[in-house]
Amino acid sequence: MGAIITLTTDLGLNDAYVAVMKGVILGINPEARIIDICHTIAPQNILQGAFVLSTAYEFFPGRTVHVVVVDPGVGTERRAIILRTPLADFVAPDNGVLSYVIRQSSTGPENTADRRQIEPGSGLEAVAITNSRLWRSPVSPTFHGRDIFAPVAARLSLGLPPIDFGEPVSSITTLPLPHPYRMPDGVLVGHIIHIDGFGNLITDVRSGDLPQTRQAITIEIGNESISGLSRVYAEGPGLLALIGSSGYLEIALPGGSAHALVGVKAGDELRIKGGTR
Amino acid sequence: MGAIITLTTDLGLNDAYVAVMKGVILGINPEARIIDICHTIAPQNILQGAFVLSTAYEFFPGRTVHVVVVDPGVGTERRAIILRTPLADFVAPDNGVLSYVIRQSSTGPENTADRRQIEPGSGLEAVAITNSRLWRSPVSPTFHGRDIFAPVAARLSLGLPPIDFGEPVSSITTLPLPHPYRMPDGVLVGHIIHIDGFGNLITDVRSGDLPQTRQAITIEIGNESISGLSRVYAEGPGLLALIGSSGYLEIALPGGSAHALVGVKAGDELRIKGGTR
Amino acid sequence: MGAIITLTTDLGLNDAYVAVMKGVILGINPEARIIDICHTIAPQNILQGAFVLSTAYEFFPGRTVHVVVVDPGVGTERRAIILRTPLADFVAPDNGVLSYVIRQSSTGPENTADRRQIEPGSGLEAVAITNSRLWRSPVSPTFHGRDIFAPVAARLSLGLPPIDFGEPVSSITTLPLPHPYRMPDGVLVGHIIHIDGFGNLITDVRSGDLPQTRQAITIEIGNESISGLSRVYAEGPGLLALIGSSGYLEIALPGGSAHALVGVKAGDELRIKGGTR
Repeated sequence: MGAIITLTTDLGLNDAYVAVMKGVILGINPEARIIDICHTIAPQNILQGAFVLSTAYEFFPGRTVHVVVVDPGVGTERRAIILRTPLADFVAPDNGVLSYVIRQSSTGPENTADRRQIEPGSGLEAVAITNSRLWRSPVSPTFHGRDIFAPVAARLSLGLPPIDFGEPVSSITTLPLPHPYRMPDGVLVGHIIHIDGFGNLITDVRSGDLPQTRQAITIEIGNESISGLSRVYAEGPGLLALIGSSGYLEIALPGGSAHALVGVKAGDELRIKGGTR
Repeated sequence: MGAIITLTTDLGLNDAYVAVMKGVILGINPEARIIDICHTIAPQNILQGAFVLSTAYEFFPGRTVHVVVVDPGVGTERRAIILRTPLADFVAPDNGVLSYVIRQSSTGPENTADRRQIEPGSGLEAVAITNSRLWRSPVSPTFHGRDIFAPVAARLSLGLPPIDFGEPVSSITTLPLPHPYRMPDGVLVGHIIHIDGFGNLITDVRSGDLPQTRQAITIEIGNESISGLSRVYAEGPGLLALIGSSGYLEIALPGGSAHALVGVKAGDELRIKGGTR
Repeated sequence: MGAIITLTTDLGLNDAYVAVMKGVILGINPEARIIDICHTIAPQNILQGAFVLSTAYEFFPGRTVHVVVVDPGVGTERRAIILRTPLADFVAPDNGVLSYVIRQSSTGPENTADRRQIEPGSGLEAVAITNSRLWRSPVSPTFHGRDIFAPVAARLSLGLPPIDFGEPVSSITTLPLPHPYRMPDGVLVGHIIHIDGFGNLITDVRSGDLPQTRQAITIEIGNESISGLSRVYAEGPGLLALIGSSGYLEIALPGGSAHALVGVKAGDELRIKGGTR
């Protein structure tokens, strides 16, 4: 079978933009298998696109090509890049939309700057997409998804090496990702990083961040308070907290929407008290 | 070509949950052809998922594998099952989401209990999915779609027999499905069972339930009244009734939404008067 | 690989209608590759379906089969047609939904009537779909997408010539498409023809309609005024105008929705002043 190419975009479902990218891909690699990850990323919300991609790519077969088009700077000087990791290839604007991928693919200490160095031997390879002979022509300054990312992904899926598409780069753009932090009084402060379609509030707190005595914790979020950790959604009624399928602590309301009940938004904080580390 | 696998879920289009299931499937059966039936089933609405699936599966080639993930009890003691019918295979939680499939696949009298017996010689075969060696590992208690249903469907599509996945079961869970009934005065009372994207009100009344003199009937629904039966949507203006493409009586408003006009909801009744049986 | 079949419909994403069409197609041509162009065309909005299709089909490989189901007259005397152009095949109701395709495929003067003549030697071939042996049976009067368009497209994708499906026709239905026009005082008046998912306002004004000195123009739309032309979206803040990826002048609000700001709708006018032709 042909290679798999996934698409994560903010292009929406009400226009033909996504289909146009697929038409371009199939014109170059008729064997490609194109899978939609999500097309309803909020317009220009790079961090949301970065997060949704990060919850999906590890579940695809090795050497899948993941294309991301959340690209408010399309047509400006922002670079377009290919990032090759030990697992997969990514084709995206160099605007931070690969921030979670890089964090999950890197073993060294996280870079606190707004750029991530690509060290030799890190297993990562990054190339600036500059070889216009491998693009569609002419290139619209407003839709690189169609004219650059789609043809590059299609040719990458045919086996062309990244270096054929441009010059190696030694760093790529990253966004500051939220991290939980501990207050002097021992309270752990986390952040809502995503609200899913069920209204579940997904946080940046991972299983290992929690105290070992999990049933003793109290979670404060908005005006609500939750005691202990549940294992499954069906343990309601009432707001509950559990470790979701991506490994993050999430707040859910069985049979309802935690988002509607609690009324928080991405970026807001929650506080986790109690328990023994 | 590879086997066809369809997906019917309440996982929505704004997250990567559906894509993750596809990645898992393609990792196991790279030849699988994955078709989306619907991912916007109202969260945890088992009956709606059951109905939407029932309008679709008969139009797919024989031996298609249909996966359903509307699963409020994920991670609890509720079973996961494979149902094999003469036409197709179904992989789903045993929570009633296959109720319409069972009704349409069975020849005997409908079971009024909340379980359907799987009789020998009925042409139905049901297996409880218990063989964890055919799952992803570890299994998240909150996303069996990814860790159990997707890998099971992929392996089923490769030709593994249902019995390899667990033990035969002699009954499966069914929900009480709405049925039209006749009042002592001869009025036929039906129910709205689905409201489609056009705002058409689809009822549980089938063509054979109606009197032979169809132009003489009057349908009362909400505060509206409809005389006779139309053949096509374009017979408006004004509210009309016709036999829709799935064989159910439906109420439609040409150029508009019957749902918005009449203001009823799934489960509400309509009354059909007149005509000669 | 199998032939490509695209689908453009108003059938929505909340029902199984689209999946049913795919099941029927795969039952006839198991090798078909089915690509969704858009399924959220506003119900029965033929002109919107015509436009969205027109922005997509040229980017697909030659001989792709494009199916369009925006069909308020389903089951009435309106014809169903196959249109073969030098680039692709189209299967659709003969209700004007191919109006843009015909304009883009024709070299002669545009027909001002509500029908387009298919001249010999024009490179266009049109056939009325009448051969019911190539349909599903029985045919529901309310869902020709499933029973006529899907099986016809599948068989066309297998190589059957259009003439096998019915009789040649010498004209097909077209809708009056909006055109920009010039006022006696030199002002160019255009129209909003589509509002995309970003809230960009796409107009019927093409690059060649604009004066050569583009930085000197002023665009008036609603209560807003825009000076000069931008090259990319990122040139904001504030409302801007640029030539979009389909070659039409569009009005955009970087980081926001021009639609929400300006408050116009499809069909509304904009006025372009100044500049030297």
